[in-house]
Amino acid sequence: MSPYVRDGGLSLEDLHVSLSDPSLASMTFLNEVSQRYPKAISFAAGRPYEGYFAVEDVHRYIERYCRYLKQELGHSDAEVRRALFQYGRTKGIIHELIARNLRLDEDITADPESIVVTVGCQEAMVVVLRALRTDERDVLMAVSPSYVGITGAARLVDMRVASVASGDDGIDFDALDAVVRETRANGLRPRALYVVPDYSNPTGQTLSEADRRRLLSRSRTEGFLILEDNPYGLFRGVRERQRTIKSMDRERRVVYLGSFAKTGLPGARVGYVVADQTVEDGTRGVTLLADQLAKIKSMLTVNTSPIAQAVVAGRLLENDCSLVAANTRETALYQDNMRCAHDSLTRHFEDVPGVSWNRPDGGLFLVVDLPFAAGDEELERCAEDHEVIWTPMAHFAADERSRRRIRLSVSQLNPAEIDLGVERLRAFVDDCSRSAE
Amino acid sequence: MSPYVRDGGLSLEDLHVSLSDPSLASMTFLNEVSQRYPKAISFAAGRPYEGYFAVEDVHRYIERYCRYLKQELGHSDAEVRRALFQYGRTKGIIHELIARNLRLDEDITADPESIVVTVGCQEAMVVVLRALRTDERDVLMAVSPSYVGITGAARLVDMRVASVASGDDGIDFDALDAVVRETRANGLRPRALYVVPDYSNPTGQTLSEADRRRLLSRSRTEGFLILEDNPYGLFRGVRERQRTIKSMDRERRVVYLGSFAKTGLPGARVGYVVADQTVEDGTRGVTLLADQLAKIKSMLTVNTSPIAQAVVAGRLLENDCSLVAANTRETALYQDNMRCAHDSLTRHFEDVPGVSWNRPDGGLFLVVDLPFAAGDEELERCAEDHEVIWTPMAHFAADERSRRRIRLSVSQLNPAEIDLGVERLRAFVDDCSRSAE
Repeated sequence: MSPYVRDGGLSLEDLHVSLSDPSLASMTFLNEVSQRYPKAISFAAGRPYEGYFAVEDVHRYIERYCRYLKQELGHSDAEVRRALFQYGRTKGIIHELIARNLRLDEDITADPESIVVTVGCQEAMVVVLRALRTDERDVLMAVSPSYVGITGAARLVDMRVASVASGDDGIDFDALDAVVRETRANGLRPRALYVVPDYSNPTGQTLSEADRRRLLSRSRTEGFLILEDNPYGLFRGVRERQRTIKSMDRERRVVYLGSFAKTGLPGARVGYVVADQTVEDGTRGVTLLADQLAKIKSMLTVNTSPIAQAVVAGRLLENDCSLVAANTRETALYQDNMRCAHDSLTRHFEDVPGVSWNRPDGGLFLVVDLPFAAGDEELERCAEDHEVIWTPMAHFAADERSRRRIRLSVSQLNPAEIDLGVERLRAFVDDCSRSAE
Repeated sequence: MSPYVRDGGLSLEDLHVSLSDPSLASMTFLNEVSQRYPKAISFAAGRPYEGYFAVEDVHRYIERYCRYLKQELGHSDAEVRRALFQYGRTKGIIHELIARNLRLDEDITADPESIVVTVGCQEAMVVVLRALRTDERDVLMAVSPSYVGITGAARLVDMRVASVASGDDGIDFDALDAVVRETRANGLRPRALYVVPDYSNPTGQTLSEADRRRLLSRSRTEGFLILEDNPYGLFRGVRERQRTIKSMDRERRVVYLGSFAKTGLPGARVGYVVADQTVEDGTRGVTLLADQLAKIKSMLTVNTSPIAQAVVAGRLLENDCSLVAANTRETALYQDNMRCAHDSLTRHFEDVPGVSWNRPDGGLFLVVDLPFAAGDEELERCAEDHEVIWTPMAHFAADERSRRRIRLSVSQLNPAEIDLGVERLRAFVDDCSRSAE
């Protein structure tokens, strides 16, 4: 009898090591925690506001895309049906529209051929890391605290992750230099740095233009790529939007990761990657990194559902390819909610020692420092006893401070709920402080 | 300067080894070869017939699924919108309907909780192999010639593949035993055997019930899992359908891979895996393999687009969850086409020495043996000079015989095109035979 099947059953040791890693359960936990406490006020899930969703939109978006195929691209009815129903182009069918959107909203000039449409941004991360991870010496650097999706993707391809600390003012460049140096000293290779420069998940932080330029310069001198992930950039606050790093990138140092989950709709599961780097491919000559990533994608998911792509395309087309325009209502709503969260926190916590929070002017997230540990156990107690939920920062970083921090997402609530939620949070903090005494 | 970025460019050696493997380009080649020769008669792509597609179907299917959510599951309008538009359950939202379909059409009793809905069957393969591949000693056995998707998926997770030969009568069990023995002798572990028992891609072959039972018995005694992939089983011919291996599996030896690409529509990109094996997971106790696979899926694609799932669900619901019923027209059409292909081959080739073909009674594929090598180069010449295309069997197997074999797919043609295509094939064969003299 093989040790791999005992009485028809398996054990975790028989399966890939990622399955024993808590970071892989994070996504499911974060996605499903809201469902476990349906009555609680939820600051937990990083989901877009859903009050503007309407089932009819799906039909209208698909129709709009079909009209575009016929009128702008000259497709026949049979070709439209084929585009929607059959297997299709591995790199996707809405790349031209995405390129238009990037030019309009992000000041990025992207060759449509350098775009791979993916099943959400998550698949984009996986294909990029799969390409870059050649053996156990390849290292992904990630600005910490980091989105769990990038850590999980790295686990799936057995890629090491080195955390680069960030403070309240942004990336710690001394820490970055030290990580690069130590990685090399250990015979390892820093291949890329993952960063969410705008209203970061989980910290809500935005990098200054000076820091963006400094990152580009480090990428050039140290020979690593920048993986710029930008799901929240257009949900600006009162300040002007910062330029994307990709828009300042003249030397193809940046692989740009895009998501329509927050700006389009999560249920389409459509994202993309701009990979305009060149790859020398033997007799085929110089290819785009996008074409290499497409080879990987063809063996992961074959192609992204053209029906889902049509839904996103319809939304783009209805807004002349501007997602800034498409999200006017959402952006205003998130701004209001963020302002309301700051006011509530001030009102309920200004007299509480050891509690502080950051003040992003836009985006979906902010972070609260607490004077005690706040992990999954405390979250469950808080949900049970006080009916308010949030996300432990321990899901995003392993340092000591993160054990006492929580992430609040303001995107799915209204001002009254935010205020009530913060009030309940205060009661929870009082409870914990009392029991700590 | 890092060796990894030379003048802003990369080289194939800087990227994962799979990208240097020709099997990874196969899928793109097979998907796109038809587009390169739009006027040629194409026996190449394994795509479903598209004459019955209608854009309106998408809307009707989605509406049908929404009605089901409201009427059968008691969802409110807001819950329906959330189900369709938001992030959702990692394992999918149409598992109950898939379980009903499996009971009806395949005689498989599956706990809906053991089902993970995936982005096509391709993602199902990747999550299963990712779970099973713990280190370089784990081996996937695959009945050869094998579907390129399984070979590609194995490359992505760095898993070794050992080919198990099949002859004209089915799997060579002596070869299977030898592979298991040799794998073990080399200190390696045969973890699973991949097989398409019904109208296999690429050979069109169907395993006998005796062989299915023998596989189950080998799986038990040798301690490997069976990965049963069944995209074509319901496209029966004149004979009765064989029972799925999973329906005979009393000991959870079979991981069942399902696809809606041929029976639903390819453009939805929805598939699934039934993984009812148990996994001992420390303090969490006994879990289903499906729940472990879901952890991997959450880091690959988060969840399968609920809009795409709704499309498939609508088609299921309109047919009382029977895909056999939904595909009456398609099944009859493929049967007709297959009969027509056999007749045409007989008419055009019975006097040609060295040319023979197999005679599947159903499915989409058959295989022709030629008296000369027929690879990608010959394909291109045939397309240029004779306007007919097919798939070189060399994409599916490395043995000598496969270099001289081609796969014909009959699903996208009508009888007149099939006959004309076979006539052109005859002209190509005459050409090649002359130049070989």
